[in-house]
Amino acid sequence: VALLLNPPGPPPEWLRQLKAALPDVEIRLWPEVGNRDEIEIAAVGSLPHGELAKLPKLRMIASLFAGQDLLLGDPLLPDVPIARTDTAEGSTSMTETVLLHVLRHHRFLPQYQDSQARHEWKPLPRLRPRDTTVGIMGLGPLGLAAAKTLRDYGFDVAGWVRRPREEAGIAVFYGEDQLAAFLARSMIVVNLLPPTPALRDVLNRETFAQMPKGGSIVNLGRGTHVVDEDLVAALDSGHLGAATLDVFRQEPLPAESPLWAHPRITVMPHVARRLEIDEIVPRIAENVRRLHAGQPLVNLVDRALGY
Amino acid sequence: VALLLNPPGPPPEWLRQLKAALPDVEIRLWPEVGNRDEIEIAAVGSLPHGELAKLPKLRMIASLFAGQDLLLGDPLLPDVPIARTDTAEGSTSMTETVLLHVLRHHRFLPQYQDSQARHEWKPLPRLRPRDTTVGIMGLGPLGLAAAKTLRDYGFDVAGWVRRPREEAGIAVFYGEDQLAAFLARSMIVVNLLPPTPALRDVLNRETFAQMPKGGSIVNLGRGTHVVDEDLVAALDSGHLGAATLDVFRQEPLPAESPLWAHPRITVMPHVARRLEIDEIVPRIAENVRRLHAGQPLVNLVDRALGY
Repeated sequence: VALLLNPPGPPPEWLRQLKAALPDVEIRLWPEVGNRDEIEIAAVGSLPHGELAKLPKLRMIASLFAGQDLLLGDPLLPDVPIARTDTAEGSTSMTETVLLHVLRHHRFLPQYQDSQARHEWKPLPRLRPRDTTVGIMGLGPLGLAAAKTLRDYGFDVAGWVRRPREEAGIAVFYGEDQLAAFLARSMIVVNLLPPTPALRDVLNRETFAQMPKGGSIVNLGRGTHVVDEDLVAALDSGHLGAATLDVFRQEPLPAESPLWAHPRITVMPHVARRLEIDEIVPRIAENVRRLHAGQPLVNLVDRALGY
Repeated sequence: VALLLNPPGPPPEWLRQLKAALPDVEIRLWPEVGNRDEIEIAAVGSLPHGELAKLPKLRMIASLFAGQDLLLGDPLLPDVPIARTDTAEGSTSMTETVLLHVLRHHRFLPQYQDSQARHEWKPLPRLRPRDTTVGIMGLGPLGLAAAKTLRDYGFDVAGWVRRPREEAGIAVFYGEDQLAAFLARSMIVVNLLPPTPALRDVLNRETFAQMPKGGSIVNLGRGTHVVDEDLVAALDSGHLGAATLDVFRQEPLPAESPLWAHPRITVMPHVARRLEIDEIVPRIAENVRRLHAGQPLVNLVDRALGY
């Protein structure tokens, strides 16, 4: 039995931990595929389209990324189970990223940096966390962990999800019908939605207009969730106050993009989350164990939903 | 009995809370001083030099600011007790400011914003909090509360103080002899020292050189703690990575200051702390009660030390 690995980072630590967790499985580092008939498992963030289709004995894909769009975008993707590897506790580094950027917007850092560029000394209100409304779009493992941290810190937190549910101390809005109300009460909107076709362009001219004046956007989901021209227009009109973007329709963001030079946009080079190898490897190993024991796999991607 | 108030912000809420806490004391809002012979207490952040000397019956000054330099700089300051009004628990907003800026430097936000200005997509390492060393200069109420929050978050925290002491989970360095060792282990140095003559210029060419390469400065103390030219030189040489400055030798920072335009300096207009009226007023009331009961005042400033 062999596992094909394409890690999103330096391979040595991935190899070391996978070998320790799966001593009976041969780990092969893509593109050194070897005999394709021996590969039953692929642990990948993404691969070039058609690569997974070349593995006739493939029985499971362990997806190393939180978003499944890169895998599901492969028109030749084999019809085998795709197992997520993120933990129910979310990601420490993504939660930290959300806290950092929510604090930045809560304390008006983008506005101060805009003032700084004009050599302008202009103190702004110092709000208490309870006076700042934060809306998290998407309460999957990443969004929920971040929402709980913000709630515990004292922010006034809401979430927007597909189906109704309860979360202690978090106002949960759901479905298209409640999106406008969710946005209207959220001064800082953090996008952690999954990258599905239905959610493409969800942050657009119309939805920005539903946000309160002076509101902020923090996009940690995918570039395709946001209509860039509409965001720039909402900032330029003065309706929105600032935006922090970690993800873009094209990455790296092209040097000629107008987003780079916008005085109220902070551009981050897709660094919100640090994949924690020691959190992910046990999730892969658990499903490999289940696969070989003939037990049902856990934490599977719903291809129809896209996550 | 009258109390002269000069609040650092809109007076109505100060007046309301002081009147409620001290129903037997007449509150007068500076500069409406009235009969100076009736004023026994001054609750002020600062006043023009010589103003307090005009109050012949003054028995106590309640200092509304954390730093005593403005009061103690008055050459005509009357020889009456000066009572601090900050709480032992520190300041919620100052702790938030420290967390915000330490997270910013830990996640290399200033470097990313410098890259953004050059339209450059350049991901940097994503460190864990335990891999980032933070050094807090000054463990008074503000510094200690911030240090504990950073420690609890997972950062590797040290403090630098005047005299030896123990703080759980915080490496305490003390005195001039240990300053170099404290700086050498601190990637992010946060200044919350009191504004005393002995600490003037403490962050200078020599002490910057003692910090690790790539280190950062967050100055939330006073502008006089930092030699600006030395800071700019340390940034320009590449020895230091970035600096966030909330305080300056001259405030507002003059438009012609080179600090505004430096690509690795974040300028904030002295907004680190929000004075919490409802935390400060009970501290004033407690000492007024003690004054009238003939009991010793508490939380007094040591004029020789300067804090």
